[in-house]
Amino acid sequence: MAQLMGQMMQMPLSISSLITHAARHHGDTEIVSKRVEGDLHRTTWAETELRSRKLAQAFARLGLAAGERVGTLAWNGYRHLEIYYGSSGSQLVCHTVNPRLFPEQIAWIIGDAEDKVLCFDLTFLPLVEKLAPALKTVRHFVLMTDRAHMPAQTTIPDLLCYEELVEAENGQYTWPEFDENTASSICYTSGTTGNPKGAVYSHRSTVLHAFAAALPDAMALAARDTVLPVVPMFHVNAWGLPYAAAMTGCRLVFPGPHLDGKSLYELFENERVSFSAGVPTVWLGLLTYVKQNNLKFSTFKRTVIGGSACPPAMIRTLEDDFGVEVIHAWGMTELSPLGTLARLKSKHDTLSREERQHILEKQGKAVYGIDMAIVGDDGKALAWDGKTSGDLVVRGPWVIRRYFKQEGSPLQSIDGREWFPTGDVAAIDADAYMQITDRSKDVIKSGGEWISSIDLENIAMAHPAVHEAAAIACRHPKWDERPLLVVVKKPGAELTREEMLAHFEGRIAKWQIPDDVAFVAEIPHTATGKMQKLKLREQFRDYKLPTA
Amino acid sequence: MAQLMGQMMQMPLSISSLITHAARHHGDTEIVSKRVEGDLHRTTWAETELRSRKLAQAFARLGLAAGERVGTLAWNGYRHLEIYYGSSGSQLVCHTVNPRLFPEQIAWIIGDAEDKVLCFDLTFLPLVEKLAPALKTVRHFVLMTDRAHMPAQTTIPDLLCYEELVEAENGQYTWPEFDENTASSICYTSGTTGNPKGAVYSHRSTVLHAFAAALPDAMALAARDTVLPVVPMFHVNAWGLPYAAAMTGCRLVFPGPHLDGKSLYELFENERVSFSAGVPTVWLGLLTYVKQNNLKFSTFKRTVIGGSACPPAMIRTLEDDFGVEVIHAWGMTELSPLGTLARLKSKHDTLSREERQHILEKQGKAVYGIDMAIVGDDGKALAWDGKTSGDLVVRGPWVIRRYFKQEGSPLQSIDGREWFPTGDVAAIDADAYMQITDRSKDVIKSGGEWISSIDLENIAMAHPAVHEAAAIACRHPKWDERPLLVVVKKPGAELTREEMLAHFEGRIAKWQIPDDVAFVAEIPHTATGKMQKLKLREQFRDYKLPTA
Repeated sequence: MAQLMGQMMQMPLSISSLITHAARHHGDTEIVSKRVEGDLHRTTWAETELRSRKLAQAFARLGLAAGERVGTLAWNGYRHLEIYYGSSGSQLVCHTVNPRLFPEQIAWIIGDAEDKVLCFDLTFLPLVEKLAPALKTVRHFVLMTDRAHMPAQTTIPDLLCYEELVEAENGQYTWPEFDENTASSICYTSGTTGNPKGAVYSHRSTVLHAFAAALPDAMALAARDTVLPVVPMFHVNAWGLPYAAAMTGCRLVFPGPHLDGKSLYELFENERVSFSAGVPTVWLGLLTYVKQNNLKFSTFKRTVIGGSACPPAMIRTLEDDFGVEVIHAWGMTELSPLGTLARLKSKHDTLSREERQHILEKQGKAVYGIDMAIVGDDGKALAWDGKTSGDLVVRGPWVIRRYFKQEGSPLQSIDGREWFPTGDVAAIDADAYMQITDRSKDVIKSGGEWISSIDLENIAMAHPAVHEAAAIACRHPKWDERPLLVVVKKPGAELTREEMLAHFEGRIAKWQIPDDVAFVAEIPHTATGKMQKLKLREQFRDYKLPTA
Repeated sequence: MAQLMGQMMQMPLSISSLITHAARHHGDTEIVSKRVEGDLHRTTWAETELRSRKLAQAFARLGLAAGERVGTLAWNGYRHLEIYYGSSGSQLVCHTVNPRLFPEQIAWIIGDAEDKVLCFDLTFLPLVEKLAPALKTVRHFVLMTDRAHMPAQTTIPDLLCYEELVEAENGQYTWPEFDENTASSICYTSGTTGNPKGAVYSHRSTVLHAFAAALPDAMALAARDTVLPVVPMFHVNAWGLPYAAAMTGCRLVFPGPHLDGKSLYELFENERVSFSAGVPTVWLGLLTYVKQNNLKFSTFKRTVIGGSACPPAMIRTLEDDFGVEVIHAWGMTELSPLGTLARLKSKHDTLSREERQHILEKQGKAVYGIDMAIVGDDGKALAWDGKTSGDLVVRGPWVIRRYFKQEGSPLQSIDGREWFPTGDVAAIDADAYMQITDRSKDVIKSGGEWISSIDLENIAMAHPAVHEAAAIACRHPKWDERPLLVVVKKPGAELTREEMLAHFEGRIAKWQIPDDVAFVAEIPHTATGKMQKLKLREQFRDYKLPTA
């Protein structure tokens, strides 16, 4: 007989179904935004869905056709959220551009994506004025503000006002149905070498990722939560929060451009934020402010920290001093971004707090949908013993299979299946907890043995006088490479080279202790908040180690 | 230009990916089963995955081809779980048969599904011996036990031993990849009229449902949970728990046939169960035992109660006396089964406990994926005002679009979309909380006004002397129908007709108070634990109300 098929309703997974669900079932749940204009704005899921439909009408009126890209240069806010849904929902492709990149990179990315419309916050008016002549694909420039805030004059031709576009429409628009594998959005990775590359997400991958992100062992999002995404909406779609929040009916609070410790703290308190997510560097600023002013969080209960490895010292501070549960996570643009999160298993119930903490400092276990493996130089899978390190590879329905417009596949065949090579080096223990030991290009190769730069940084960061630390490889005549520790001291703190090095004793094998310490005023960061080790290595290229 | 497609990995949603995930990432997490044989059995996700593969090999060796059905008559246990994955995972269709149905119905269902293999627990040996001659489609009978427990003789031809089948295989088997819309399992609804009808689930619908079921506002399943499904695996796949548990890496505890209060309580305590799910009647027995013996739950923290409306009094007892959070849910076989769950929103944080409790007594809000509406007799959508009742209709990717082998569509077109009519009557409030007021056939029509039988039952159940109560319509010369309350008293409790009726005063409109009370020793239940009102109505067909 013919194969039996399921007899269930056929409904494509779609981004419009997320906002429709939120509007129908969580209609009056608030979306609060700190605006570029300075004030606090309040709207709801129902209003956001309606305005997204109006925006879809406006995009159509501007002549955009299915599959064309809508670029954004914008902070986290309700208008950005409307663009997410108004574009993807109407079969356009939402392309969030990171405004912290160099202007030339921004122009290059917008050209590569062939954005037809560019929507941007007031903050970026001078930037866009400068770039506009170079943006050959852009037919319409939309300033995300109301008439009152439009500039009296600008060099941008035919600059459109976002509010006027939206309000001109009647909202009589039905979200179209289409193949769930249709492109929904593009994010570019800011690679440290070569031009940025685009990951093209689909409606299917986005909805499946939202399910995974909302699960109890991931971000654990419920309708009782008030979620403040510190991670920018131009950074891998704020880790999928704008989608997962609609799916689960969360209340949303957007900080706009106000990411300093004081602004964030006041927003957390005034708006009763229960959950947040961001990279480690953001928490540095917030925690410094909170500590300096002897403050406490009254509603903030848990946060996902990822983007780069979270120093264990930061996890301890958040948990012990502030009662905020830290969920350490790992992901990347090519994974939409969620891959693993550190959460406990049933058998860990009997462990001591210290033992549990040790597990939770790892990047964690794969969320369902993602499978992972570590492979050696011979391309063969390595053991999950918690000691063996290898190149981390992943697969899953929200992992890219190719980059936008790039010839050739980035995938790697292992044991008859295709995997995406992450560029991270990791160990996986017998309980399937993964720990990043390094970026493959950051690992320090000393006499044939590998030293994890992250291990060294975590130890350094646990010292009370250290604000930030980076361990990089320095040339060494005998060992090829030896670790140099680059340190930013806390304001007013005293710390000598000898004290820093003594701090490593007993915490790591003797041969792994850095050969030297260099104190600097600042460590360079990428536009997404990661330490720029490539730049550091360049800076210290001719550095002579005392051991050399 | 051509429409832009997403560039993500193409991986079909599959049931085998659930067990593979559990085996790789939660390999040593336990699956504990109280066996029919009487002892407690322990295995793991890794072992279950391996044995499921061996079982897939065994099914192939028995000559089963893709799409063919594997029937089960079995309790909740690890072998049943292996059949779930071994059959669906290898592109066969798992057909769980409810052993509590009448033997003739069981034979009819197995014939309608054309089961090629029938696997059954020792409990059901006498039943299957009786039925075997009538089961024309079944080519192989498999007794789910080891050689030592095989009967010395049986009338079943060529009876196979489950353990021998599994252990004969080497496990060198790779789960096949195929279209995610392929049928994965069939469940029959035990309709109160006509023959049962089969719902044919797909791999896609099952995985999407598992995501939804595991969400924080649904069952909130995490790897730290120990889950005891009281709801049988022959009842809508135990509400999807065997799938959602694999997805999230929960520890599982199966009660086998031991569902009495004492057995359940001991299993809850000894195995540190944190979460359970079942119909209200199961909790009656457990709570009675626990109260009579002055016991407490030490690890049991929350439970989903559904299948039929949960009396508010039971919710209060579980929460106030035992600290168990009750998640009131609604679903049906045709919905895989989850539709709605009662969970709070962010804006409810400021409500009093009483006000929150009132919200949580409803069947709740739709989980993402399910949309719902209520419609009037004219087929038009009704307002969500919490007062207007109408026929509840739903749609979503885990809702059936037709029944197995049935001509014609059960769906109903409303506002240009297709909806599944649930047969329930419900009101939906402005916050999108749904409350079932009745089954459409159980509603009591008194002088043109509707009286909710569920409202009357909930009030009756709140009386300390009432064990169970059913409100049914009785013929009345003036009002057409008037309510009769059928009551089972608690053992040893005293309660008169007058006391019962007085209990309604002030709790409901005067004209809705039942006209009479009939005390009975027992109320008949369906095989899935629901009160059989059809049978009750037949029993009281000629009952003369004192008001008539």
